Amino acid sequence: METRLHFVTLATPDLDASRRFYAEGFGWDPLLVVPGEIVFVQVAPAQVLGLFDAASFARDLGEAVGGPSGLSLAHNVGSRDEVGALVGRLGAAGGTVVKPPQEGAFGGVFHAYVRDPAGALWEVAHNPGWHVADDGTVTFA
Amino acid sequence: METRLHFVTLATPDLDASRRFYAEGFGWDPLLVVPGEIVFVQVAPAQVLGLFDAASFARDLGEAVGGPSGLSLAHNVGSRDEVGALVGRLGAAGGTVVKPPQEGAFGGVFHAYVRDPAGALWEVAHNPGWHVADDGTVTFA
Repeated sequence: METRLHFVTLATPDLDASRRFYAEGFGWDPLLVVPGEIVFVQVAPAQVLGLFDAASFARDLGEAVGGPSGLSLAHNVGSRDEVGALVGRLGAAGGTVVKPPQEGAFGGVFHAYVRDPAGALWEVAHNPGWHVADDGTVTFA
Repeated sequence: METRLHFVTLATPDLDASRRFYAEGFGWDPLLVVPGEIVFVQVAPAQVLGLFDAASFARDLGEAVGGPSGLSLAHNVGSRDEVGALVGRLGAAGGTVVKPPQEGAFGGVFHAYVRDPAGALWEVAHNPGWHVADDGTVTFA
């Protein structure tokens, strides 16, 4: 399985708050910091999450960029208890709990939604139907 | 390098248009289709892109979900010529070219931005500074 998605980039009005959320909440230290411009965090093999100063993002794109909406990013954990524990850390690191840990509406997951400081939704989930083969291929049971 | 980001989920008002864009534009066939609800496309080892019917997404989240904004997803290609070729296919598959292939404002990339049918931005880039070690760790030259 080749990597097809190499960057996920989120516009943020506050790079420091975003950096802190990922470092202290998830425990993911930056791969590279370009002060005032962008913070890169590695989130998978050959894949990077970019927290991009919104004004710089707009300059690169050539049009205005609003706050992140209409998407979620998800991190799977190994048990229901871990969902609650991680949500607690994300809240302490500047996240806003939008949906406390509970059964999801779809897919048999136990999950929560937390908004990061820039407005992006993170789903923290325990998904018993999530299986990954040795070659990285995902199947849903 | 462990996968930390397991799902990227985008709200879409038109599942069929989104599915077509990824299948015909990028050439990525769905991993799983739940008609009227969600289309899953694998985008990295142990990682899935979800194209989630916006009304279903709102039900899962517990609040209204707008169209994707404030983010970009990026796919790296091996040469400048490939940027233009892929952007052509994405346009033919229902994407809207926001920034035609050109030098980027940052990072020494040659790139373009294309909006998918749901409104999410895709950056198609040739980035000579992008390096991936055998263990998946990314470095920027």
